[in-house]
Amino acid sequence: MPLVRIAFRAGKSAQYRQAVAEEVHGALVEAASVPELDRFQILTEHAPGDLIYDPTYLGIKRSDDIVMIQITLNQRTQAVKVALYKAIAARLAKNPGMRPEDVLISLVPVAPEDWSFGDGKAQYVKTES
Amino acid sequence: MPLVRIAFRAGKSAQYRQAVAEEVHGALVEAASVPELDRFQILTEHAPGDLIYDPTYLGIKRSDDIVMIQITLNQRTQAVKVALYKAIAARLAKNPGMRPEDVLISLVPVAPEDWSFGDGKAQYVKTES
Amino acid sequence: MPLVRIAFRAGKSAQYRQAVAEEVHGALVEAASVPELDRFQILTEHAPGDLIYDPTYLGIKRSDDIVMIQITLNQRTQAVKVALYKAIAARLAKNPGMRPEDVLISLVPVAPEDWSFGDGKAQYVKTES
Repeated sequence: MPLVRIAFRAGKSAQYRQAVAEEVHGALVEAASVPELDRFQILTEHAPGDLIYDPTYLGIKRSDDIVMIQITLNQRTQAVKVALYKAIAARLAKNPGMRPEDVLISLVPVAPEDWSFGDGKAQYVKTES
Repeated sequence: MPLVRIAFRAGKSAQYRQAVAEEVHGALVEAASVPELDRFQILTEHAPGDLIYDPTYLGIKRSDDIVMIQITLNQRTQAVKVALYKAIAARLAKNPGMRPEDVLISLVPVAPEDWSFGDGKAQYVKTES
Repeated sequence: MPLVRIAFRAGKSAQYRQAVAEEVHGALVEAASVPELDRFQILTEHAPGDLIYDPTYLGIKRSDDIVMIQITLNQRTQAVKVALYKAIAARLAKNPGMRPEDVLISLVPVAPEDWSFGDGKAQYVKTES
C-alpha cells in the first residue's frame, strides 16, 4: 500500500540505493503496521542542480547526501507518524550509514479505497462484491 | 485535472508507453467523468533495481511488466473509484495487452481549488472574480 | 515544507530550469507564507512523448514549453491558493519569460504532522517531546 518515491543525488551506487529502499520499507513494517510484502517503491537519481534543498532550514545541517522520501500511504495517527520518522532515520543511520540530518520525509495520506493492487480491483474495499 | 504519473520498467517501446497512457486516460473519461481534453500525464522509465515491487502481495502474481499509475484527481465516490480500477485494467488488457495483475493504481484525491490549468488562475473555483 | 516537483520537456537549459525553480519558490514565499529557507525541489526532464498535455483544455493554448508543477504543502485557504497561482505565473512570465498559458499547477495539501525535515523528528508537531 505505501507507494514510496525516493529521490537521490546522482552518484550513489545501486547497492547504496537498495539499502535505503530496504530500510525505509523495514521502518514502515516496524513502525507503521505495513505488511512485509506490501512493498512498492520508485527510486530516482537527479543531477545536483535538479535536486534542490536548503542546507540549514530549521537548524538542520543537510549535505549532498540528502534523500527526499515521499510516501503515499493510508492515514496513520500522529503518534505512528512520529514513530515512523524516527525508525526511518535510525535504520538509515545503520545501513547504509546516512546522517539523520539528510533524511527528508513527506507523507501523503490517502484512504483504503484509493488503491488497486492489480486485477482492476480495490482490494482494501471491504464491501466490494 | 487528473495529473497522471505512470512508471514503467525501462525497455518498453514508445508505442507501448503511449498505448498505456492513452488507455488510462480513456478509462478516466469512461469511468470517472473526466473531460476528454483534460489530459496531463508524465511517463517515466526506471532500471530494474529502481522500480521495486512485491511479486505476490495479496496473492496477485506480478511480473516485470508492472506499471505503477499514480493519479492526482478531484475526489470521487468509492463506487467511481472501483469502476475506474476495473476500466483501467480492462482497457490495458486489450491495448497494449497487459496482464491485469501488473496494473498497480494509487489515487491521490484533492479538491477543485487545488488546480491551475494555466494563466495563473484557479479555473475550477467558481467564485473567483 | 513544500516539496515541489517540476516537470519539463527535455531541452531547457540548466539556467532556465533554475530560474523556474527559483521563481516558484519566490511565489510560495510571497503568496503562501512559506519560509524563505524552506526550499525542497525536484526537477525532471522528459522526452516529448513522455510529457503529455492537452493543447487547448479550458480554452488555454499550451505549447511544448509547458511545465507541470506539483506542490505538496500544508493546507492553505482557497484565497491563498488563488494568490499563489497568480504569483507563480506572474513571476515565470518575467523570469525566465514563460507564457502564463504554459504554467500548470497541482497542489497536494497535507498536514503539519506529515513532514520530517531531518533527524527523524516531526518538526512541525508541537506536542512532540
